Order: sequence, then C-alpha cells, then structure tokens
Amino acid sequence: MDAQAWLAERIPPVNAALERWLPGEDAPPARLHAAMRHLVFPGGKRLRPALALAAAEAVGGPSAAALPMAVAVELIHIYSLIHDDLPCMDDDVERRGRPTVHVAFDEATAVLAGDALQSLAFQVLLSEAEPVAGALAARELAAAVGAAGLVGGQADDLAPDPGAAGVEHVLSIHARKTAALMRAAVVGGARLAGAQDERLALLADVGEKVGVAFQIADDCLDAEDEDGCSLVALEGVEPARARAEALLDDVLAGLEGAGESAEPLRALARFAVRREV
Amino acid sequence: MDAQAWLAERIPPVNAALERWLPGEDAPPARLHAAMRHLVFPGGKRLRPALALAAAEAVGGPSAAALPMAVAVELIHIYSLIHDDLPCMDDDVERRGRPTVHVAFDEATAVLAGDALQSLAFQVLLSEAEPVAGALAARELAAAVGAAGLVGGQADDLAPDPGAAGVEHVLSIHARKTAALMRAAVVGGARLAGAQDERLALLADVGEKVGVAFQIADDCLDAEDEDGCSLVALEGVEPARARAEALLDDVLAGLEGAGESAEPLRALARFAVRREV
Repeated sequence: MDAQAWLAERIPPVNAALERWLPGEDAPPARLHAAMRHLVFPGGKRLRPALALAAAEAVGGPSAAALPMAVAVELIHIYSLIHDDLPCMDDDVERRGRPTVHVAFDEATAVLAGDALQSLAFQVLLSEAEPVAGALAARELAAAVGAAGLVGGQADDLAPDPGAAGVEHVLSIHARKTAALMRAAVVGGARLAGAQDERLALLADVGEKVGVAFQIADDCLDAEDEDGCSLVALEGVEPARARAEALLDDVLAGLEGAGESAEPLRALARFAVRREV
Repeated sequence: MDAQAWLAERIPPVNAALERWLPGEDAPPARLHAAMRHLVFPGGKRLRPALALAAAEAVGGPSAAALPMAVAVELIHIYSLIHDDLPCMDDDVERRGRPTVHVAFDEATAVLAGDALQSLAFQVLLSEAEPVAGALAARELAAAVGAAGLVGGQADDLAPDPGAAGVEHVLSIHARKTAALMRAAVVGGARLAGAQDERLALLADVGEKVGVAFQIADDCLDAEDEDGCSLVALEGVEPARARAEALLDDVLAGLEGAGESAEPLRALARFAVRREV
C-alpha cells in the first residue's frame, strides 16, 4: 500500500477537526488561544491521530469513526509537549524550528495552554464520539495520561539519572511516557469503530509495543544528544535498534491474521521504527 | 436544618473516595503521588463536593449518587490551586498554613501533580458514575474547566490590572475562574441523581450565582490584601457585599419551589456568601 497516499487522505480531516475545536485567536482570551494553537498548527507528523484512524480501519471500520479519538490524542500530545518544554522541566527553547510556547508567550500562559488542551481533549471525545464507546475511550485515555501513565513516566524521567536504574526501568519509562498514549490511541480508535474486547486486547499490545519501539528508535536517531534515559545510552545504538526491530516483529506477527484492512496500521508501525527523520 | 450535621455525615465518604483514588505515597513515583496528595489531605472546606451532593438531594436523589462528581470537582479544584500557586502565576509559598506544592516539592513536580489530578478527575467520573449520565457530566466538566471556563478566567486574571476593564469584566472572570466549576458541580451532581433537563437548567443558574457570590464574598473577607481584580477594589466592601446578597436572594428565590430536600443546597448557598472565615 501507498502509506503516503493513505496519510495524505486521512490527516486533513484531523487538521480540520483540530481547527474547528481550537478556540480562535480573535476571541478572548486571545493570548491563551494563540498559545494553545502554537504547536498544533502546522503540527508534526500526527502519528498518534494516524494510529487511531488506522486502528479503526484494522477492525473493519471507517477511519472517520475514530476522528474524535484522533483529535483527543493529538491535543493530549501537544499539552504534554508544552509542559515538558517548561523551564522547570526540560527547559527547551525551540521545537520544530520555532520557539516553544513559554518562549513565544510566557511561562504562565504555557502552563494554562497545556491545562486547557488537556480539558479540550476530553471535551472533544465526549462530545463527538458515540456516547458509550466514547466514554470508555475517554476513561482509558484518562488512565493512560495520568500518574500511572504519561505524567508518571515524565516524573520518573525527570529524576536524576533515571538510566542508572537499568534497562527495565528505562523501558518502564518509555511504556508510560510515550507508549501509554499511543496504546490509548490504538485501542480508542478501534473502540470507536465498534471493536469488541478480544480485538481490543490484541490492539492494546500492538499500541504499546509500537510506542516503546518508537521511543527507542527516536533515541537512536538522536544518539548524539543523549540524555541518559535511553537504551542507546545503556546498551549502544545497535542493540537498541535490534530491540526496536524485535518489537516491530512482534507487532507484525500479532497483526498477521488481521487482513488487508490492517495494512495502514502495519505501515505506521514500520514507519515508527524505521523512519530516518 | 443542621448544616454542620449534614456536612459531618456527607463529607467523610468524599474523603474516603479521595483516599481510594489518590495513588499511594508508598508506590512509585512516590514523590509525584505525595505531591498530588499534599493539598487534598487534610483539605479545605470541600465546598464543591458538598454542592454536588446537595444538588443530588435537591432533585430527590441520594447524595451517594453524586459521589463521583464530588470527587472529580475536588480533584479539579486542587489541580487549579497547585498551578495557580506556581511562581509563574500567583507565586504563593503558603496555603492553609502549609507550604504550597512547588515549595514542599519542586516546580516540575507541582506542574505534573496538577496535570495528573486533572486526568484523575475524568478517570474517576467515567469509572464510578452511571455511564450515560457520567459521560454527560464529564463533558460539561471538561467545558467548564477549559479555555472558556476556569483556565480562561485564570488567564484573564493574570493580565496586568484586569480590574481596569470594569465591573462586567471582573464578573466575567469570577464566572469563569470560580463559578464554572461550582456550576458543573451542581449540575453534574443533579445529573448523576437522575435530574432531567428542566431542573438542570435551573440548577445551572443556581450554581453559577452561588459561585460568583462566593467569589465576591471571598474578596470581601480578604479586603486587606486586595489584588485589583475584585468588586471590592472597584466599588468598595459594602456595595460588593450587597451584590453577593442580591445573588443569594436570586438563588433562594430560584429554589423556592424545590421543597425540603433542597434545604442543604440553600444552606450551602448561605454559607458560601455569609461565612466569616
């Protein structure tokens, strides 16, 4: 399949929905609204929304059913980037070639913009999705991004020298900080497309492994500016790359019986692990 | 009715549910968990949970039906206090006689604790409430605390001299920063107890007015350390107090036909406006 063509068709509705839900820069409080939009547009790879849409197709649904999940996971992702960039966290001044939110605006506005984006994620999901499946997906999303998931992973990542605790601890940080949201994207996307529990359990495993493999691959790409909390720092680039490939093999084996409709999900898994930029 | 006896019976189950949902300080990441708990226990007046429970009783339900909403609004309230206290916001070092979260822990942990408490609010509500009503209440909560509500009010409150824009602007900040969450508490509590749309519209108005009146009364109590964004600063204590009393009159008139079961809600409205500490 032509992954680029698939993305070129599926991502514009995600961007249109984000545009529809993000409050306008012409309405007050304009500075807050502008800060909320700063990293959403033009945005990055939209990998998490793509995973939600591909999961919906993998279970035989139309990707459009998963659109509320796609928007929600992107809003959560952007909120987490804004807060991670803060001076008290990673203190990053630039992202994707532009100033980070606290640099372009100010620190208070960056905290508030992240806070509002988190609320908006739940608002979109609970407003646009089919009610019962939407509520379940929102509940799973809330669990994935809280203290047991994304936020807990970031807290552990900020500790002094988290890599010193060994490979299992680093993998646990990846599983929470990066993979929990991707897992929620895949499970939620499939849920909104009507998937039943057995398929969802398989897809949860797929989402989690894609997420961990993505983080390992990301660290391999960034091997020069290593921060310590990575398999690259602990084991070197080649063993880390081998682990990511092994996870990808597991993912593709898990999706073996899923047929042609799972091809976009397979393609995204390959892209997450083998991308070169 | 004996308001103290009512509270003494209704609040312990809220505290027990908070204890059940907050992750333990003995489990990792322990520092994050301790920071999440810091302002929750022993906690303050639990006014927002009480409003949710009283609203459930006002529509003829048992207050226990509203427990998930009571927990959710308290978690949101605590998250907003933690973020408001940050150095980049109000820069407060003490709250309720104890160090604020970023002082007791550190700034990064305070940002993350607030973030995780927000997620947890939605997780509790979507896990413990009856699914359809819970999803509606969660959607309303998300809208109430985002850019159009609590966060937007805080953003406007942080602007230089917000009081200069006049009484209407200050009232709009109160309505968003303070009243939106109280309104969501009242509406959500009643919703979980099975109230229908007509009652909910009346209670939304009640919740909003109680919230604005509470904020005005709060500013009257704090008249010495005035920050500019208050009716007290614009009009003086007596006219501000008169506005709060007028809002209370409206609330009590709105609840006139609501019978004996609305007595706790009336008592909380009076307490919100007339409390002396």
